[in-house]
Amino acid sequence: MTEAEPKPAAAPVRPAYDITGLKSRLAGIKTEDNPALVKQKSRDFYWYSPTLKRQLDHVVGDIIVSPTSEQEVIETLGAAFELGIPVTPRGTGTGNYGQAMPLSGGIVLDLSGMNRVKAVQPGRFVAEAGAVIAEIDKVARPQNQEIRMHPSTYATASVGGFIAGGSGGIGSITWGGLRDAGNVIRLKVVTMEEEPRVLELSGDDLARVTHAYGTNGIITEVEMPLGPAYRWVDLFLGFDTFERAAAFANELGEQDGIAKKNIAVVAAPAPRTYFLRHQDYIAEDQHVVIAIIADFAVDAALNLARRAGAELLLRSDKVPEEERKKLPPGFELTWNHTTLRALRVDPAITYLQVLYPFPDQVKLATALHERFGEEVMGHLEFVRFDGKVTCFGLPLVRFTTEERLEEIMRIHEDLGAPIFNPHRYTLEEGGMKQTDEVQLAFKREADPKGLLNPGKMIAWEDPDYDYRSGKTFLFKSLAAAGVSP
Amino acid sequence: MTEAEPKPAAAPVRPAYDITGLKSRLAGIKTEDNPALVKQKSRDFYWYSPTLKRQLDHVVGDIIVSPTSEQEVIETLGAAFELGIPVTPRGTGTGNYGQAMPLSGGIVLDLSGMNRVKAVQPGRFVAEAGAVIAEIDKVARPQNQEIRMHPSTYATASVGGFIAGGSGGIGSITWGGLRDAGNVIRLKVVTMEEEPRVLELSGDDLARVTHAYGTNGIITEVEMPLGPAYRWVDLFLGFDTFERAAAFANELGEQDGIAKKNIAVVAAPAPRTYFLRHQDYIAEDQHVVIAIIADFAVDAALNLARRAGAELLLRSDKVPEEERKKLPPGFELTWNHTTLRALRVDPAITYLQVLYPFPDQVKLATALHERFGEEVMGHLEFVRFDGKVTCFGLPLVRFTTEERLEEIMRIHEDLGAPIFNPHRYTLEEGGMKQTDEVQLAFKREADPKGLLNPGKMIAWEDPDYDYRSGKTFLFKSLAAAGVSP
Repeated sequence: MTEAEPKPAAAPVRPAYDITGLKSRLAGIKTEDNPALVKQKSRDFYWYSPTLKRQLDHVVGDIIVSPTSEQEVIETLGAAFELGIPVTPRGTGTGNYGQAMPLSGGIVLDLSGMNRVKAVQPGRFVAEAGAVIAEIDKVARPQNQEIRMHPSTYATASVGGFIAGGSGGIGSITWGGLRDAGNVIRLKVVTMEEEPRVLELSGDDLARVTHAYGTNGIITEVEMPLGPAYRWVDLFLGFDTFERAAAFANELGEQDGIAKKNIAVVAAPAPRTYFLRHQDYIAEDQHVVIAIIADFAVDAALNLARRAGAELLLRSDKVPEEERKKLPPGFELTWNHTTLRALRVDPAITYLQVLYPFPDQVKLATALHERFGEEVMGHLEFVRFDGKVTCFGLPLVRFTTEERLEEIMRIHEDLGAPIFNPHRYTLEEGGMKQTDEVQLAFKREADPKGLLNPGKMIAWEDPDYDYRSGKTFLFKSLAAAGVSP
Repeated sequence: MTEAEPKPAAAPVRPAYDITGLKSRLAGIKTEDNPALVKQKSRDFYWYSPTLKRQLDHVVGDIIVSPTSEQEVIETLGAAFELGIPVTPRGTGTGNYGQAMPLSGGIVLDLSGMNRVKAVQPGRFVAEAGAVIAEIDKVARPQNQEIRMHPSTYATASVGGFIAGGSGGIGSITWGGLRDAGNVIRLKVVTMEEEPRVLELSGDDLARVTHAYGTNGIITEVEMPLGPAYRWVDLFLGFDTFERAAAFANELGEQDGIAKKNIAVVAAPAPRTYFLRHQDYIAEDQHVVIAIIADFAVDAALNLARRAGAELLLRSDKVPEEERKKLPPGFELTWNHTTLRALRVDPAITYLQVLYPFPDQVKLATALHERFGEEVMGHLEFVRFDGKVTCFGLPLVRFTTEERLEEIMRIHEDLGAPIFNPHRYTLEEGGMKQTDEVQLAFKREADPKGLLNPGKMIAWEDPDYDYRSGKTFLFKSLAAAGVSP
């Protein structure tokens, strides 16, 4: 820092929460206030976004509380309510938008210790919210069943965190997104009141807490459907143009008889440049489709690929055991793991979240890919969306300035590709969810003091906020910390 | 018969096959030539069609041969080839277009004794062609697996017959049709040659024998995928207009997260009039949606139904045990079981097979329903077709004359709804399949004498036949028997 630069803003005045009083009230429950550990558990993968990195880097809670039962959650919320201490729930911290970051400090409610898989029955499982998804499948697989959808952080993400902070992922090409009816069966939720209540939500009521970042109650138990545990094969297919790769991915997605788990398209030169373990298989100019297909349908998929002019680069079932051990599973190259692998090679990379609406998805994704060249490298994830196959995009952006990032997003929207902005920490600006009167009414009931994950729901914090202003919402605690919008 | 009527045509000269020689060559194999039994095994449900009833009623084979192993099939085909005796394969005779009827007499090859379920593994099963579908599921269900699609004749149909003579059915709303890649994994087929060969077909080669009525080889073994064995619930939902019922069915079909097995729409007054066991649940003017939904998704489906203005008439999981025993399973009111139930009440009913192409399916089906009134009662079956949800129709027709039936079909086609004509016994006129040069070449190789199921493949019998003539193809053996086109 040079003499000429302005002095940093004064350290914000942190609200003075009665942490000592809290600890004495929670005597039987595991807590941790070592600052280094609290800081570690106060963050997620927000740093994928340079904007969020700038805005949230200082965010830290006061104490971690780690309940191991619903009763301990109830006790924690009751004490926090009494003492007016905010509570920000956290699974394993694999979110990308600061979902689990405590903007107003207070309690980080670490639910990773509530991780029991309580039941696996035909077609469904029941687990505590902190159960890691891969661990659920370990119980389900001997019954030829597995979870129907999961994020690319399958190996570490908690199921409750996925529901509270995610939207879909691997499996969505078959089953749609978490928002779709039928993908969550039932949730147990604890409210933030003087006498916290335990609610069982199902049907339309699920929308109150799915993808709400824990602003409307703390999810403690999850019941979800299971699907068939096929033997999945990763196929890597090379194409000479992005358009051909995208058109093939779409065609494969529309093959109803081919059981599939994911279909991703990554534009050259990203696959060769960023998929370090796979570099020997991929040429620099190859656009790659990564398809995860049931073993018995691989021949059918490869017939289709051949007709589409693809080169088979790799199929996981034919790789020698010795070699396969060195390769990550295919899904760990998709969704936000694509971003992660790019970031590891080039820290200047960031990303967008785009929807290319049916029926023009291939044309639109190709047009946008061609428009930006290597500044915005195409990355598509095919999904079922309202009953049709279409694709989301998580293109890789060579970041220059926040202004240019905003401009790139505006161009997408102008061309008809809505953005779900991953550079915002609020529910509304992320765009997956508009907070409506029903949800607000539910929050008034379930969290009357507004202590659950403060700052994430604009409709609560600033009911008169003008979404059409074009400005970014800035939560008061961030403003107090000297953050600019 | 009055004096004035013309005399019936002379009994046709049956080709003189050497049945005695055949029996001596097949000494170790079960055969049956009792005329009553042979007649019984020479027919299927061709009588759903008044046209086919008129044309095929006299058709009968000379002998039933019932092999119990692939080796016995090979011996039978070898002997038949040597003696020039036609062979018409048959599973359990549940087809509707005379698929298994021996137009030139000869051998009815009854494969129902080849019924072993040879393997059930994660995601797939292997069974002999004559295995009854319900019996396969009895082996698969303890593993939380079941067959992914089946006809409404689930309880009696053989899996080989389904593949050779069917096209899809219950399950097609999720997995598409049998023609779709991935829905059949592998078939073993015996050729009709001096030295019959056993071929293993997979991938694109499957199209040579699926829905080919056994004209291209005898299927002896089947490998198909399995899906999740959810606990399925039958929902009967009443609507006050056909259009609302169809629109709801389409919307439910597009719910990617709701695991479903079938969605049918039956126009009033058919449900009340023809579903005799369900009459107490249905009002005369109610258009009914029959949806088969995974238990955990029933609430989600009913939320949707409520918003669509449906009345819940029946849900199978809430019917008292005593009452439920009296009700057929929901799928036995769908596809061609709808036709069967109507025929039992009113023998003058017949049906069509229609495709209402995406994306105009609801509008088109409604327009056709309204055009014909009760002469053609709407019956829709929703499916995935090329990746989109759309519907087939099997409307119930109050039959008057063959000419009017043709006219009704013409009107459908003129309005953009292709007909798969169920009043024809040939592959080509049924319209599910055009015989191309590849298939013809395969038949030349696999059945050089043309002894397999003669008369069903026009491209073989009459290569110069003009499909645009508007005339019905008449196979020579039927012409010889005095049948008119």
